Amino acid sequence: MDRPIALTLGDPAGIGPEIVVKAFMQESALTQGCFVVGDASVVRDAARILARNGIAPATVVIDRPSEAMVVPPRSVPVLQATVFSGPLEKGRISALAGRFAGLCIQAASKLALQGEVQAVVTAPLHKEALAAAGAPFDAFAGHTELLQAEAARWLGLPLDQVPVRMMLANGQLRVVLVSIHVPLREAIAGLTFDRLLETITITHRALNRMLDRRPRIAVAGLNPHAGEGGLFGSEEIEIIGPAVQAARSEGIDVQGPFAPDTVFMRARDGQGKVGEFDVVVAMHHDQGLIPVKYLGIEEGVNVTLGLPFVRTSPDHGTAFDIAGTGRASAASFIAALRMAREMAA
Amino acid sequence: MDRPIALTLGDPAGIGPEIVVKAFMQESALTQGCFVVGDASVVRDAARILARNGIAPATVVIDRPSEAMVVPPRSVPVLQATVFSGPLEKGRISALAGRFAGLCIQAASKLALQGEVQAVVTAPLHKEALAAAGAPFDAFAGHTELLQAEAARWLGLPLDQVPVRMMLANGQLRVVLVSIHVPLREAIAGLTFDRLLETITITHRALNRMLDRRPRIAVAGLNPHAGEGGLFGSEEIEIIGPAVQAARSEGIDVQGPFAPDTVFMRARDGQGKVGEFDVVVAMHHDQGLIPVKYLGIEEGVNVTLGLPFVRTSPDHGTAFDIAGTGRASAASFIAALRMAREMAA
Repeated sequence: MDRPIALTLGDPAGIGPEIVVKAFMQESALTQGCFVVGDASVVRDAARILARNGIAPATVVIDRPSEAMVVPPRSVPVLQATVFSGPLEKGRISALAGRFAGLCIQAASKLALQGEVQAVVTAPLHKEALAAAGAPFDAFAGHTELLQAEAARWLGLPLDQVPVRMMLANGQLRVVLVSIHVPLREAIAGLTFDRLLETITITHRALNRMLDRRPRIAVAGLNPHAGEGGLFGSEEIEIIGPAVQAARSEGIDVQGPFAPDTVFMRARDGQGKVGEFDVVVAMHHDQGLIPVKYLGIEEGVNVTLGLPFVRTSPDHGTAFDIAGTGRASAASFIAALRMAREMAA
Repeated sequence: MDRPIALTLGDPAGIGPEIVVKAFMQESALTQGCFVVGDASVVRDAARILARNGIAPATVVIDRPSEAMVVPPRSVPVLQATVFSGPLEKGRISALAGRFAGLCIQAASKLALQGEVQAVVTAPLHKEALAAAGAPFDAFAGHTELLQAEAARWLGLPLDQVPVRMMLANGQLRVVLVSIHVPLREAIAGLTFDRLLETITITHRALNRMLDRRPRIAVAGLNPHAGEGGLFGSEEIEIIGPAVQAARSEGIDVQGPFAPDTVFMRARDGQGKVGEFDVVVAMHHDQGLIPVKYLGIEEGVNVTLGLPFVRTSPDHGTAFDIAGTGRASAASFIAALRMAREMAA
């Protein structure tokens, strides 16, 4: 590993700081070279919550990302992005916490865009706290949109020239979503040839880099039985099929549209069986997330494809109900960190 | 068991006859009291394909369903519904085969409606063969619609007074679908208060009988995050929530709408965990079938709810590509038979 990895704490009123510190405590090899972009006091609070026999992990303030490579194992290096000035009430929505989270993401993405870190792994945000934080953060639904805006600004491009897509992955299945947080009616209306071809292209590029070979991409249909030859819907004939063909003519190893109810089962690795595809492009949010989450969400990882840097995050929220108790599992965050290493390698 | 169970062969050019005979060979206790509604020559052909060391299971022609209770184990009782007169070419779509399949279903459903059998278990049809068979069979997309029409005719009611729904189940999960073979756009447009309330009511009645207690029913949302309070769609607020409340006020144990991407995972039994719900009502075909099929389709069972009798079938097709080879697995058919017994008990 040549460059360090930046970790953000997410909303400090949630479980973010705890799962980040837990990752350092549980995975000394994996976290070697990682550092927090945040505030040492927030990290120290989390470390105290997780102290064993009165001994909390040490927090080490660093001035440059490169210093993260040489701190002692299990200590947590922190690059001060901003100071969290105010009472931190766990489990409460607060503008201050939302603003802190947003500023840290901006700082981490800047380091990534400058090439000082090889990846960014983010702990969960709270959407309402981000909205309460005011401008510029209230303009973004979440990490994906904020990171896209930061990248576009850095590259000097309009937003639509930096198209991003969400990939969800666990040990058995990867899915990339054509659309995410829109009503299902709008997801159908927004399913166009261009948008789908762009999704396939982004998926191909990212997975090609990640797997070091041409990925085998499956595209799901939109309708039951992928439309059954037009009987149950026309999107497969008018939009999805042509986009798959256009991508194939560019040399991409993509097939479909396949019947949605079996393509995920076919793509899945498991029980000694290697899946038929490396990734499935799903036509809307739940088509892709139902199968990814079906076996449990402990190991789910969210990856933003299309950014000029690697960004992963756990596939869960701030869990305000258990924030501050030390009970939150770091499994998904650790899986996200592992995937970031794999993708950045 | 007080009454026999009728089995149909499905399309005789498919794997149906083979999996029915295999079920008798593999499951002597489970098939005790079962009989085929069909043609002895078709059953004998299948038995020859499955013969071991030259010994094929015996085919016993019976005149009344009750005789099925007393035939020797592993022999296959057949009630002649019609004669299959013509060449039987395996793996070929034929009007003759489609017509034979349709006539046998009519005969079996009549026995069920008369109360002479306690359940009907059907092997797979071929939709195009059924269409090629001409009137009346070409009016039906498949078993569900044909059985509904037979029941309505018997009861002297219009079709819409005998509403039926498809339930898919395996060892871990049950889902009931609000709609099935329509474009996704139409599934959304057709999602009404009445249709959903009817689905919940049908589900409650059938599961109540099956489990011998009030079933715990979950209703999935339609949109991402079940609409996130109206931000990602309004169907949850305008249709789904009110239908759930109306069903609750009738004493049904139903909750929702839940986020579609996690409700199936929550309902699922598995790894020593008992699911939070006995069944999930899914808003459209693939929302429900993606999770049911995700772990494999070997054990999937299709159940028609709302008929005045129990009807189950395997969750796979005619598999024309391997028909006649004896290789088809009877696992799903056997699971369907097991579920029919459970529901009829």
